[in-house]
Amino acid sequence: MKIDVLSLFPEMFTGVFQSSILKKAAENGLATFNVTDYREFSEDKKHHRVDDYPYGGGAGMVLKAQPIFDAVEHVKAKVEGTPRVILMTPQGDRLDHQKAVELSKEEHLIFICGHYEGYDERIREQLVTDELSIGDYVLTGGELPAMVIIDSVVRLLPGVLGNEASPIADSFSNGLLEHPQYTRPANFRGLEVPEVLLSGHHKNIEAWRHKESLRRTFFRRPDLLEHYPLDEKERQWIEEWRQEKKHSRISKDQ
Amino acid sequence: MKIDVLSLFPEMFTGVFQSSILKKAAENGLATFNVTDYREFSEDKKHHRVDDYPYGGGAGMVLKAQPIFDAVEHVKAKVEGTPRVILMTPQGDRLDHQKAVELSKEEHLIFICGHYEGYDERIREQLVTDELSIGDYVLTGGELPAMVIIDSVVRLLPGVLGNEASPIADSFSNGLLEHPQYTRPANFRGLEVPEVLLSGHHKNIEAWRHKESLRRTFFRRPDLLEHYPLDEKERQWIEEWRQEKKHSRISKDQ
Repeated sequence: MKIDVLSLFPEMFTGVFQSSILKKAAENGLATFNVTDYREFSEDKKHHRVDDYPYGGGAGMVLKAQPIFDAVEHVKAKVEGTPRVILMTPQGDRLDHQKAVELSKEEHLIFICGHYEGYDERIREQLVTDELSIGDYVLTGGELPAMVIIDSVVRLLPGVLGNEASPIADSFSNGLLEHPQYTRPANFRGLEVPEVLLSGHHKNIEAWRHKESLRRTFFRRPDLLEHYPLDEKERQWIEEWRQEKKHSRISKDQ
Repeated sequence: MKIDVLSLFPEMFTGVFQSSILKKAAENGLATFNVTDYREFSEDKKHHRVDDYPYGGGAGMVLKAQPIFDAVEHVKAKVEGTPRVILMTPQGDRLDHQKAVELSKEEHLIFICGHYEGYDERIREQLVTDELSIGDYVLTGGELPAMVIIDSVVRLLPGVLGNEASPIADSFSNGLLEHPQYTRPANFRGLEVPEVLLSGHHKNIEAWRHKESLRRTFFRRPDLLEHYPLDEKERQWIEEWRQEKKHSRISKDQ
């Protein structure tokens, strides 16, 4: 997979592309990373400006269409095929696991990162194939969101993750949150590991883990249970936890 | 504000902390950034391991309590007051603007970044004050989420944002998505700016922008309209757009 990023802050990407799985993906020829500073495409040869005032007035500046169009065309010209051109914007579709899977099947991704400013609407209308957001919060630029999407996508490429990346990290695989995990020592500063985990009794361990997964999901992310098929016993637990939640709320209020 | 990050990949942070508003915040004495490699706190002097197998079996590795406890205590010892200790985990509370505002009022934040692995539950139980997630997708480590939270928080510190950071970037300020923006030239490769924006007629410009904000919000993020007080005219527009949406869906299906 070929990944191009257009940004005014190329140096933000250096440490991230040269660490961990992104570094390994590049070393193993599974992905290439390239950052282009679109200021180099400014037609303003004196000040290299890439933004201008908004038509109709108002505060703030707007990224001009021309440097972005020219930079995208420059990057496209070097590669065959039709890349996805992704605009980083809080107005875009929300990134989720499904979207990462979809993007991982592409051969070439181009990320456009604004910084501080709005985009000239013609960039949206004519140049980009996707507008993406990583969540409902305000960030200074598209650089960190681009890194987040790139990590979520590249880790899905066949051959990128070795044994060091465990399914433990994947909290959404079976629709529930991960159960608590413990490692040595069994007693750390007086804090003990639940006995069942030391018992060697695999069936009990599985049962404990499943119940704790369900408990954690109920207390932290009840929305995930909406489509989760509960059996009779599980429904009973949930009812108990609901009472527990209610009482803890009352005692907090007092 | 003092920001400490505990990570096995300190080099990932270098370019990000030395760019844009984070760099300026540090230069102006408004924030300090410090990354501690908790591998240095491993008691395993030969291999410097910080993880071990999970009690009860299963795939993957678990971050040990000891190096994290020791690293957090080391970082706390250098500062007075009670820091917020934030664990980066997909199981945590979702970051939103409200949470960023809350964190921006603290004096000292400590971020714990796992990488690949689960956390020993005793870290959650005894050491951390907050567990945070930036969204429902799987990433390789807590480093990128920590950078995202740090950017969202530091930009709120008084004095950090200058004039270069415009309200344009803030898509959630009035509860609607931002209207389209345009800048020069008025005709770019045959793509023209809407006439009203060139008219100089401020009242019409305001009306156009408001309607386009509402339209964009209806088509992209109808959930944001649930609590938005619509007047009679706005309700009528929404009804028209609803028809439009229905028809475009039918013609797509054919």
